Amino acid sequence: MVSTLINGIETLDIDAQDRGFQYGDGLFETLRIRAGRPCLWSLHLARLAHGCGRLGLPMPDEILLRGEADRLCRGEADGVLKIVLTRGSGGRGYRPPENPTPTRLLARFPVPDHPPENRTQGVAVRICDTRLGLNPALAGLKHLNRLEQVLARAEWCDIDIAEGLMQDIEGNIIEGTMSNLFVVQAGILRTPELSCCGVAGVMRARVMAEAGALGIPVDESRLGLHDLTAADELFLTNSVIGIWPVRRLAGRDYAPGPLTTHLAAAVDMCND
Amino acid sequence: MVSTLINGIETLDIDAQDRGFQYGDGLFETLRIRAGRPCLWSLHLARLAHGCGRLGLPMPDEILLRGEADRLCRGEADGVLKIVLTRGSGGRGYRPPENPTPTRLLARFPVPDHPPENRTQGVAVRICDTRLGLNPALAGLKHLNRLEQVLARAEWCDIDIAEGLMQDIEGNIIEGTMSNLFVVQAGILRTPELSCCGVAGVMRARVMAEAGALGIPVDESRLGLHDLTAADELFLTNSVIGIWPVRRLAGRDYAPGPLTTHLAAAVDMCND
Repeated sequence: MVSTLINGIETLDIDAQDRGFQYGDGLFETLRIRAGRPCLWSLHLARLAHGCGRLGLPMPDEILLRGEADRLCRGEADGVLKIVLTRGSGGRGYRPPENPTPTRLLARFPVPDHPPENRTQGVAVRICDTRLGLNPALAGLKHLNRLEQVLARAEWCDIDIAEGLMQDIEGNIIEGTMSNLFVVQAGILRTPELSCCGVAGVMRARVMAEAGALGIPVDESRLGLHDLTAADELFLTNSVIGIWPVRRLAGRDYAPGPLTTHLAAAVDMCND
Repeated sequence: MVSTLINGIETLDIDAQDRGFQYGDGLFETLRIRAGRPCLWSLHLARLAHGCGRLGLPMPDEILLRGEADRLCRGEADGVLKIVLTRGSGGRGYRPPENPTPTRLLARFPVPDHPPENRTQGVAVRICDTRLGLNPALAGLKHLNRLEQVLARAEWCDIDIAEGLMQDIEGNIIEGTMSNLFVVQAGILRTPELSCCGVAGVMRARVMAEAGALGIPVDESRLGLHDLTAADELFLTNSVIGIWPVRRLAGRDYAPGPLTTHLAAAVDMCND
């Protein structure tokens, strides 16, 4: 079974001069595979294209990319597909080549073995010490410069803590190390705005769209620790896990609430 | 002639799952080679060890590293040696493996063909639009998350502009895309402090030490655009170029000044 394709070829090797390796000069997407197909394909492709525009990377041909994705997903009941796109090799130091030949990596993995109760009963979450830097030029992008997340995720090894929330250097709550955060306050769905840092997740966008369609008011704004304390419900999202309610954070217990449950059911289908 | 060693083996291939490629989870050093030896070896090794400490990476054995460096430098009159150290493959998502097996890449390159007048007559410099984000946790490190520098260096292709200066998001002048900046004002040598962003260059440290030894007052502090306008002399440093005087910036001409010339001569020897 093919599990990795690099520029369409079955290999596990990257050129050591690839700008992805040298500078983190690229983007990635992590998709859920269900019933032999990559989930939320259009949303992931749209984000990749947006990131390419912001970094000045040529977007790969979408039919080619889908063909390679299908080759890896076919026959897989469940799994994870990671797509990495870099500016390839070449250029002079940091200066990108004028006509880059991007590197396109697609790799299939098993779904991480998170306890199934994470979805139903929720997860315990901590607040990380590592802060997110502020950089509007890169904010929102799922780029390859991920040292902040690595340092934050290295802070704990207690397997009962499923995720860590990160603040920016000014103390705003932004996201989890690998997930976005939603807060329900008095019937309003709130999520941190990501103009200065953070990753604008595909599942985050999907949840916001679902909420909008259900007539639930959605508010993207600055959130602080006090907003977590004051929340009726908290939940985390990403494309692989879907929605995880938060059941414990900073000494407070939360019950999975009705809005979380409602949205989890609404987004819990691979379509698109 | 061997030009690349990865973990001591002559190859050009990196595992696509290497955390350097996936997350930029690593560090690098760029050294000048002269007369068959890597210059300022101890300073580069000390910075690498400091970075390893901050990122929680095991520092490679120094004798092993020097042996590999010597293998690449031997017989080379002049050149550039790049050392990349990553956390290797493994771990679970962002979470680092408990006992990482780092990837150690050493690669030799020719010296970039900068005009020799850069050293004597100085260079023209621009101010970049791309700003440096603020992140104390990563500030000073020569880590592999370098998208900011890539975007800044992509801003211009005029070959008469040798470097671009970068401000942080608050407007402080920090450094060039590939160099550190020094300003001479009334006999004082000033350079931006790097507590929130920037790379603490080895040549920067060397210049500061030389200035100290010569009795020149050195000041690490916040600098703004007005400090450049008010400067008697400006110069750029890195381990490959040494010192380049700035001869033109933002519509103002500067003459290579006496302190710049003095320091350039003082650091223009590969010793250590």
